[in-house]
Amino acid sequence: VAEAPVLGMDVGGTKVAVGAVAGPRADHLVEEPTELSSTEALLDGMEKAYRAVVEAAGEPEAVGVGVPSQIEFATGRVLSSVNIPLEGVALREELANRFGVAVFVDNDANCAALAEAQLVDDAPARHLVMLTLGTGVGGGVVIDGTIFRGTHGLGAELGHVTIDADGPNCPGNCPNRGCIEALCSGTALQRDATELGKDKPDSPLGRIYAQNRRVKGRETVEAAQQGDPDALTLLERLGTNLGVAIASFVNVFEPEHLVVGGGLSRAAELFFPRAREEAAARALPALWERVSVEVARGGAHAGVIGAGVLAGQELKGQARDTARTGTTEGAR
Amino acid sequence: VAEAPVLGMDVGGTKVAVGAVAGPRADHLVEEPTELSSTEALLDGMEKAYRAVVEAAGEPEAVGVGVPSQIEFATGRVLSSVNIPLEGVALREELANRFGVAVFVDNDANCAALAEAQLVDDAPARHLVMLTLGTGVGGGVVIDGTIFRGTHGLGAELGHVTIDADGPNCPGNCPNRGCIEALCSGTALQRDATELGKDKPDSPLGRIYAQNRRVKGRETVEAAQQGDPDALTLLERLGTNLGVAIASFVNVFEPEHLVVGGGLSRAAELFFPRAREEAAARALPALWERVSVEVARGGAHAGVIGAGVLAGQELKGQARDTARTGTTEGAR
Repeated sequence: VAEAPVLGMDVGGTKVAVGAVAGPRADHLVEEPTELSSTEALLDGMEKAYRAVVEAAGEPEAVGVGVPSQIEFATGRVLSSVNIPLEGVALREELANRFGVAVFVDNDANCAALAEAQLVDDAPARHLVMLTLGTGVGGGVVIDGTIFRGTHGLGAELGHVTIDADGPNCPGNCPNRGCIEALCSGTALQRDATELGKDKPDSPLGRIYAQNRRVKGRETVEAAQQGDPDALTLLERLGTNLGVAIASFVNVFEPEHLVVGGGLSRAAELFFPRAREEAAARALPALWERVSVEVARGGAHAGVIGAGVLAGQELKGQARDTARTGTTEGAR
Repeated sequence: VAEAPVLGMDVGGTKVAVGAVAGPRADHLVEEPTELSSTEALLDGMEKAYRAVVEAAGEPEAVGVGVPSQIEFATGRVLSSVNIPLEGVALREELANRFGVAVFVDNDANCAALAEAQLVDDAPARHLVMLTLGTGVGGGVVIDGTIFRGTHGLGAELGHVTIDADGPNCPGNCPNRGCIEALCSGTALQRDATELGKDKPDSPLGRIYAQNRRVKGRETVEAAQQGDPDALTLLERLGTNLGVAIASFVNVFEPEHLVVGGGLSRAAELFFPRAREEAAARALPALWERVSVEVARGGAHAGVIGAGVLAGQELKGQARDTARTGTTEGAR
């Protein structure tokens, strides 16, 4: 069965990437800087990148779009966005009007999980959980091959699951304390490294703190890679907390695969062995034996691939619905 | 569309209940004491109860069976059981041979969740999470109207999700610490009340401890209902921990309904308001606004109803599969 031609679009805080997606591959890739000055400018930039790919690859049947935002999936409306000017925008409708083809919008963590499900061994995975460790912590859950979203598409907020009820406040847009984002995100790492640098002025982290009044997550990772014991301890602790979280998700979802991605995962050697060890000690044994826990494989274009896979799946779902009821709810 | 006639069977630690299930109702109910002396005796008792209902209600198209066990759903094999002699038993096959009709076996927490989905306002619920607070803590998750089980039917072990990484050891068959069962179960309540009674010999809990060298969960609930401040504090603390857990599940599943059942929920007035308050302070606001969090409605026969609903759904699923492929994998 030939797949319908679909495009994937990945909207990040610094660039918009678009490509033609077939299976686990993205071709005809185009990147534009993300316009943050206004909603209109951002949408114009997205359209520009879209048109450039259409020029090379032809008009698609659908476009999938991943955004770093909370999405009401059924309508494609953006409820909230942290870094980009899309709050309250009816994004699916806006883009469908501009592009003249079916558009599906989802959050970037869901798209990343869909991409991973195409990239694991024995792909596609039917049941997969992905945690994305970046500035914040995102989550995506694949159940029976498709993204799980909850009642209104607001679910799978895995980063805001508590692992230490008395832990620090979440640095994200979340009222919780001790959730995964409060303990395993780049922001959490920066908070702890800054605190430590302040307390130990003669240490490597202390010298970075003296320069900038803060120690970034990336600087902490670099210090650890150079063997600084303080930085190594912080990353081990992050690994322990991540392991607690992984055990919970294995017990809840019993996935075939649990993968950890995001910017921090590029330094996985500093925390992932500890995380696996902690998870192995906590997860129910019958479930732990059956799951593969790995670092995500998605490269630079995972967001584009995942968005394209989403569009392909939703198109097929609409075709099924049309065959059954003679109508379609697609935003075309 | 008329539902196929189905029976539901609920196997508990003290009794086996069977009834004919239609919608959210169970009729022709028969109960037999649970035979714990051997697997054979237990199966004989289940068959006896089954035959008695068939006598009154006629032969069903299928039987759903809920057991307090870890089940590999696809095969209906019991991986482990806490209180009944079913470990390693190919229960679905055994019962299908004895009954001569299609049999489906699931754990009792999943069946209870399916029953609740029929009993809530605007039933049936499409997305529902149930926590069952008894000796242990069980969980059941309904997604798109059917039970979510994970890859091999071992998922939705909600009771073993961590809420306090440094918390006490789980009293159940689980290597974790600080999981929900370690903090919100009847066993956890007994542990804390016993400790408290030991420390305060002149208190109401202390006097119970002096008599029996332990304070049971039920005795703690009674002391709290009579106004004992120590017992009230323990139940408030249980409520706080339950609220942490509820917030996590709202953030993960974004259900329409989250319900709390099990024996402890009969004393919900002592901890549920605190749990709701804590959950409201922690869950993501957009998700909290959209969820109903309540005490479960299932009465004494919820297990029978849920098992019957399961059988009805699985029969329909098989009919669909048969129409598509001309074969069925049912254990008939």
